[in-house]
Order: sequence, then structure tokens, then C-alpha cells
Amino acid sequence: MRRIRLKVAYDGTSYHGWQIQKNQITIESKLNEAISDLLSTEISVIGASRTDAGVHSMGNVAVFDCESPIPAEKFAGAINARLPQDIRVLKSDEVDENWHPRKLGCRKTYEYRISTGKVQLPTKRLYSHFTYHSLNVTAMQKACDAFLGEHDFSAFCAAGSQAESMVRTIYELEVIPVSSILSDGSKTDGSAEKESTDYLLTEGDVIIRVTGNGFLYNMVRIIAGTLMDVGCGKKHPEDIPDVLKSLDRRKAGPTLPACGLMLIGYRYDCDF
Amino acid sequence: MRRIRLKVAYDGTSYHGWQIQKNQITIESKLNEAISDLLSTEISVIGASRTDAGVHSMGNVAVFDCESPIPAEKFAGAINARLPQDIRVLKSDEVDENWHPRKLGCRKTYEYRISTGKVQLPTKRLYSHFTYHSLNVTAMQKACDAFLGEHDFSAFCAAGSQAESMVRTIYELEVIPVSSILSDGSKTDGSAEKESTDYLLTEGDVIIRVTGNGFLYNMVRIIAGTLMDVGCGKKHPEDIPDVLKSLDRRKAGPTLPACGLMLIGYRYDCDF
Repeated sequence: MRRIRLKVAYDGTSYHGWQIQKNQITIESKLNEAISDLLSTEISVIGASRTDAGVHSMGNVAVFDCESPIPAEKFAGAINARLPQDIRVLKSDEVDENWHPRKLGCRKTYEYRISTGKVQLPTKRLYSHFTYHSLNVTAMQKACDAFLGEHDFSAFCAAGSQAESMVRTIYELEVIPVSSILSDGSKTDGSAEKESTDYLLTEGDVIIRVTGNGFLYNMVRIIAGTLMDVGCGKKHPEDIPDVLKSLDRRKAGPTLPACGLMLIGYRYDCDF
Repeated sequence: MRRIRLKVAYDGTSYHGWQIQKNQITIESKLNEAISDLLSTEISVIGASRTDAGVHSMGNVAVFDCESPIPAEKFAGAINARLPQDIRVLKSDEVDENWHPRKLGCRKTYEYRISTGKVQLPTKRLYSHFTYHSLNVTAMQKACDAFLGEHDFSAFCAAGSQAESMVRTIYELEVIPVSSILSDGSKTDGSAEKESTDYLLTEGDVIIRVTGNGFLYNMVRIIAGTLMDVGCGKKHPEDIPDVLKSLDRRKAGPTLPACGLMLIGYRYDCDF
């Protein structure tokens, strides 16, 4: 038996998340259908991350087992030919039959994007959360340090979690102003002649990037909401240690909407 | 009577273009409905650009006349409250009652975005045209000069045009590699840790930016297709003058799909 590994990207807008659910269209169900059709036998993938409804990915990981002689790297194209355009297998390879996408010791990176301004550009509405507030990026950046390391993240976990332990480790947490991603030449001076790429990335936007060994239910969206509260002045960077210690969900900020969240990818001992 | 001017952004994916058509949902019909509802009287806007089905905008311009005492700058928010999220009025002001959005002497800027790679990221599918070919940006840039100035653009006009004259002036035409827009710090080295913003703008992508006094039917999409042919080596930069002189649509490149096209904005004598 061979175990094939897939790197899966999707626009989550039209799906009820990753995990198979009765009477709902999910990423997992679409993948199972496509691979089963390709191999003419019932296939069920095992996914790394069960992303929520509306969350996007450019690097979820899934494996499935088969007896097919198709070369491992050819699976990506063959599966894509059977998937809708908003789900794409970015690459495929073969792994040891014991390799598991949720094995210990991996690092997982998410980004949460917040766009700011007077009016949200329609081309940004599906992939960012919009706010009228201008954000104090320096304060948000100051608030990041307190999250780093191993903590009980009960204050940052939505009700309904089935996790056995609330302890997780955050390796990196950054607040990246989009102005730092754009080169000086591409920055806008407000005139019509310099607005290039503004419809995707605008100077006032902010990207929250977090890497950890795992995340509780809604944890990234609650961290993003808490950092947004700091950016708006509703909370101060110094408040974060107390919020963490409280283990009380009500002390943290709001759960921001799914659309702003993107699973960037996994890093196992080897890259994929 | 007051004349109110609107700057209108939209994601064109779900619309049959700007112009009102029987039994089709268009940007113009949605705007008319929203403003008529706001003012409780039948309102018809006059638009600057009748963008095609599927084409996006972050700067189309429209005007309408009314007797309402609402302050001009308040119209944007009041109309947005009655529009779907994929159409947004970015700002509103009051202009002279003779001011017309298609008046002579304005400059109009479009961008066409091409994304390249092995597999198209789902988050880029709605706002760019995907190709497996890697593009020779230097050749594409060399090809731009021949388009500048006043020409008969018959070779770059789709059948069905109702234009009286095929003569237009192109003021600027640039091929911008996305790598030049991203700052060095944000460029990817292929690892999972540096893929930030890749889901929107990837180094291999290319933006074609053109400013002119007006464009014929499908002209920007045919220029983009011709430049893409140059980028793929199917045409050479030196071929462009002959294509233009031929006045023959068959000599130019293909009409690229609507999804990659974005109306960036208008520049009248005054900015808006």
C-alpha cells in the first residue's frame, strides 16, 4: 500500500470547512470525491487541519492510501482535473505509510488579514476583515511578546472545543503592516496614477502572522480580535499577560470572522 | 437640480457588466435601484465606463441628478447601505450640472494581471489570468513603446464595436513584475516561513498597466494578450509596429479573459 501526500489550497468562501458533514459541501468531501473518481475506488483522505467554514488555505496537508501505480507527483494534476477551481492540489508526493499529517512536532502557520479605510474595496472582501478604525501597529506589535512560548490558552478558545489540553506553544507572532511588504516605488500617494495593487494590498492594512505547534478552536481568530482591540486602543499591550492568566474567554477580544483567516502551511521536520 | 458624482468599485465576477440589460443583473441596475430606493424616486446614473461582464473596478465614475438636500459626501455611505457587498461607492461629491463623466480630455487607467506558476492559487482565480508559461518580462517591456501615442487601433478591437473612430491615444503602457512591487523582505525563498502575501501577489506575476484617452471594445484585453504572446516568445517586440499598421485583428494576440482586468480609475483635469 502506498501513502500519497497532498498540499491543498482553497478559497473557503463557498465551503462548510474542511471536515465532512452530512448534507454540507466541504473541502474533504470534494477531495474524497475527486480522488475516488480518479482511482475508481472509495478513498478517504486524512487532513492535517480541520479548518472552519469560510477559512482559506494555501497549505493544508492531506494523505490517502492507494495501490495505484500513478507516479506520486502526477496525482496533483490528475486530482485538480476533477476538483472545482476554488480547491487546488499544489503538489503531491509519496511518504512512508506511517507518516501522519497531524503528527507531533510540526509547526503550523496562519495569517489573519485586517483591511482598514473608509470603505472596503470589493476585491478585498473575501480575504480580509474590514474595519473603519485605523490601527496602532506599534501597540499591536508590543502586545505580541506576551503570547510567545507555552501557555494555557483557555482565554483564547471558543466554547465547544473538544481539546484534552488547553496548553499550546506559540513560536512566532508578528504584526506586519502591509506598507512594509510593498516596495517604496509601489506605495501610493493617493493619486489615480499610483494606486496599483491597492485593490489587493493597501498600505493601511495589517497582517497578523502566527506560528505554533497547534491552535485551539477559534484561537487564531480570537488572538487577532484581541490584537485588533489593542490596535484600536480598547486594550493595552500590558493587559495581555493578565488576559492569558485569567483563563477566561470573556477577557480576550472578539472572534474575528473566518474570511480574514488563511492557513499558510505546515512545517514538518522536512519541508513540503 | 444638483449633480452628484460617485466613484464606484466592484468585483465584476457576478455581474453582466456595467450597462443595464434586460433580465440581467448589472452594476448600473444595482446602482439605480439603490439610489432610487434612497431618494424614493426613479434615478438613472450616467456611467463613465461600460465595463464588460466579469471586469472589475476600483474607480469607475457615475453621476446622477436629484433635488435631495443630503450633503454630497454623505451619499456614499447611504448608497452603500443599499448595495450588495461586491459593489461599493468609494466617495461622492457634487459637480457642476453640466459635468459629464465621459467628457473629452480625461485619462483612463486599466490594469491587467497575469499570474504564473504550476498551479493557480484559488485566492487569485477571480482577479487574474493564469498561465503555466513563465513570462519574459524584459521582452514584454520592450514591446510597450510601439503602442504609445496616437494610433488606429483596429487590430486591437473586437468585432461588434460601435465606435465611430478607431483612433485612440495611449499615454503610458508598463509591464510591472510583481517582484518589483514587493519589498525585498517580503520576497519568498520558497519555504513555508516566507510565503506571506503569496496568495495575493506572487513574485512571478505580472501587471500590465495602461493609460489612454479611451479604449476600443476589448482593446486592453487584446493588448494584454499580445504582450503575453511576446512574453511567451510567440511574438517579438519588433512585431508590434506591423501588427498596429495591419489594422487586422487576426495579427494581434488573443483576447484575455475578463477576470484579469481592473479599471483603476479616471483622471480628469481635477482628481477624484
